[in-house]
Amino acid sequence: MGGMKAPEDLLRRIRQGNRFLLTSHINPDGDAIGSELGLARLLRGLGKGAVVWNHDNTPTIYKPLPGSERIHIGEEPPAGFPDVFDAIIVLECPSPDRTGLEQHLSARPVINIDHHLGNQCYGAVNWVDSAAPAVGEMVFRLAQGLKVPLEPEVASCLYLTLVTDTGGFRFSNATVAAFEAAASLVREGAHPEQVAQWLYESQPLAVVKLTGEMLQSLQTHDGGRIATGRLTREMFERAGAKPGDSEGLIDQLRSIAGVDAVALIRELPEGGHKVSLRSRGEVDVEKIARHHGGGGHRNAAGFTIQGEGEEVRREVAAELGAALGS
Amino acid sequence: MGGMKAPEDLLRRIRQGNRFLLTSHINPDGDAIGSELGLARLLRGLGKGAVVWNHDNTPTIYKPLPGSERIHIGEEPPAGFPDVFDAIIVLECPSPDRTGLEQHLSARPVINIDHHLGNQCYGAVNWVDSAAPAVGEMVFRLAQGLKVPLEPEVASCLYLTLVTDTGGFRFSNATVAAFEAAASLVREGAHPEQVAQWLYESQPLAVVKLTGEMLQSLQTHDGGRIATGRLTREMFERAGAKPGDSEGLIDQLRSIAGVDAVALIRELPEGGHKVSLRSRGEVDVEKIARHHGGGGHRNAAGFTIQGEGEEVRREVAAELGAALGS
Repeated sequence: MGGMKAPEDLLRRIRQGNRFLLTSHINPDGDAIGSELGLARLLRGLGKGAVVWNHDNTPTIYKPLPGSERIHIGEEPPAGFPDVFDAIIVLECPSPDRTGLEQHLSARPVINIDHHLGNQCYGAVNWVDSAAPAVGEMVFRLAQGLKVPLEPEVASCLYLTLVTDTGGFRFSNATVAAFEAAASLVREGAHPEQVAQWLYESQPLAVVKLTGEMLQSLQTHDGGRIATGRLTREMFERAGAKPGDSEGLIDQLRSIAGVDAVALIRELPEGGHKVSLRSRGEVDVEKIARHHGGGGHRNAAGFTIQGEGEEVRREVAAELGAALGS
Repeated sequence: MGGMKAPEDLLRRIRQGNRFLLTSHINPDGDAIGSELGLARLLRGLGKGAVVWNHDNTPTIYKPLPGSERIHIGEEPPAGFPDVFDAIIVLECPSPDRTGLEQHLSARPVINIDHHLGNQCYGAVNWVDSAAPAVGEMVFRLAQGLKVPLEPEVASCLYLTLVTDTGGFRFSNATVAAFEAAASLVREGAHPEQVAQWLYESQPLAVVKLTGEMLQSLQTHDGGRIATGRLTREMFERAGAKPGDSEGLIDQLRSIAGVDAVALIRELPEGGHKVSLRSRGEVDVEKIARHHGGGGHRNAAGFTIQGEGEEVRREVAAELGAALGS
């Protein structure tokens, strides 16, 4: 089982080159960073040079990955670019503009390795496998094709890409290939417990306390089809939390069985409330947000509003109720 | 790779029997329920009778598992017991008293299938593999030994045991064997996305409210290396929650950055407290649990204890502190 092997022309390009520049998309995620760092180290193991260059900073949770401190960041090219590089390997990026470094890509032949369905095949070599659970899994197949043994650090980088892109093996791309690659990577020394610790067990205490505060304010409406939560300034103080700490807390409301729409009403330091809305399926919350001068998409939107907190909750719950009925 | 094969005397016992009673431990978890339901259905697929009998109710999150509605619950034996049964298969249970049905176990030969290190080998046949990531993975190997193809429903039951016992592939028992079993089970029709929805996205409102109550009781100790939470009977009442609803809540404590050991102290309806312990790396909580007459593994263990709740918290925090220092 598993996906197709890495293509011969890709293997040849890599065997022939001596020094590679690796990049990915702006706002890099786990698959971008893990694939870059894993492949860079793998290339160095073959005696080749490899430099990772990203437009944007590495998110904090990926900084423990081995080699992350060596990533070159920003619009200014790394030393010797482009002359010292034989090719630019672009990982997990459907189109050149998404690298944030498009103006530099024409300086060297591009090797495009991706799993996005709509990849524009913009490379001199293009390996696009939309069935791959993560690009990191393709890098693993590339290592097999190059017959290079994986170091434990490479295995952990690639294992992380599987975890982040499959939502911790919870999404529909948690396929046989994903689990087989995970088994192989763990055999080569990837450390699932360590990776999980980086990704999931590093919540600031204040965020966990704020979650408790928010859940204490939980109310349901319309026979349980709507859930609302509030975060007051007092709650932030009690939890020792900063405004950014409420990011993602609305998912706790979304996790409730039978709920079709949720709202989190957060009191702003400067007064007024930020209302975040989430919905399932056809329930359109963007329309509600737009009505209040905000925006978003059908299933995720937000706006700010003045007024007393519990009044705002009642109004928002009523508007969500109307959206459910429509 | 993977663990040792199911032993021949076990395979013979199962081939020879016609009707089996299956049980596990009190307060059954995902590995208990998933292994029971998976094995029961597997035995029925071989044309044999199988009845699952548990002392305690099935936790809500495991009720979507196929066959859960047929589990016989309570101290009153199921119809025809013991005459109609050839053997009693006890799954994931280190000692007979932990079944809650000990007085009935002598009525028929016991087949003991478990992965607890301290299993007392109390059966006529004992298959104990402490390296198994979950007993459900042993049931999978049993199915291979019996050469019975897995139905998708059986595969999903056994896949769920891997997910719950490895903490969603986040614990140190997320081994090569765990991922290889997951790959095989997905190939046989297990549905990771569906299982994840059961476990993580269909939370009863009471469970979410109970999470909020528990987080309000959160305390940290030893400079943040230990976190403890409590669940009192009043909290269960306020949340409208049942005893089984606290399953998995301890993970909220584990998610805190810098924490090496956590304890959740739950007041029992009949008085006393259930203490659940989790740890990282080398910190051994099984030893603490064993000292109090409980059991488990190095990084996940539990026991029951009498006393006042906050006193229990202080005592447990002190013992965890000692375990950190050792």
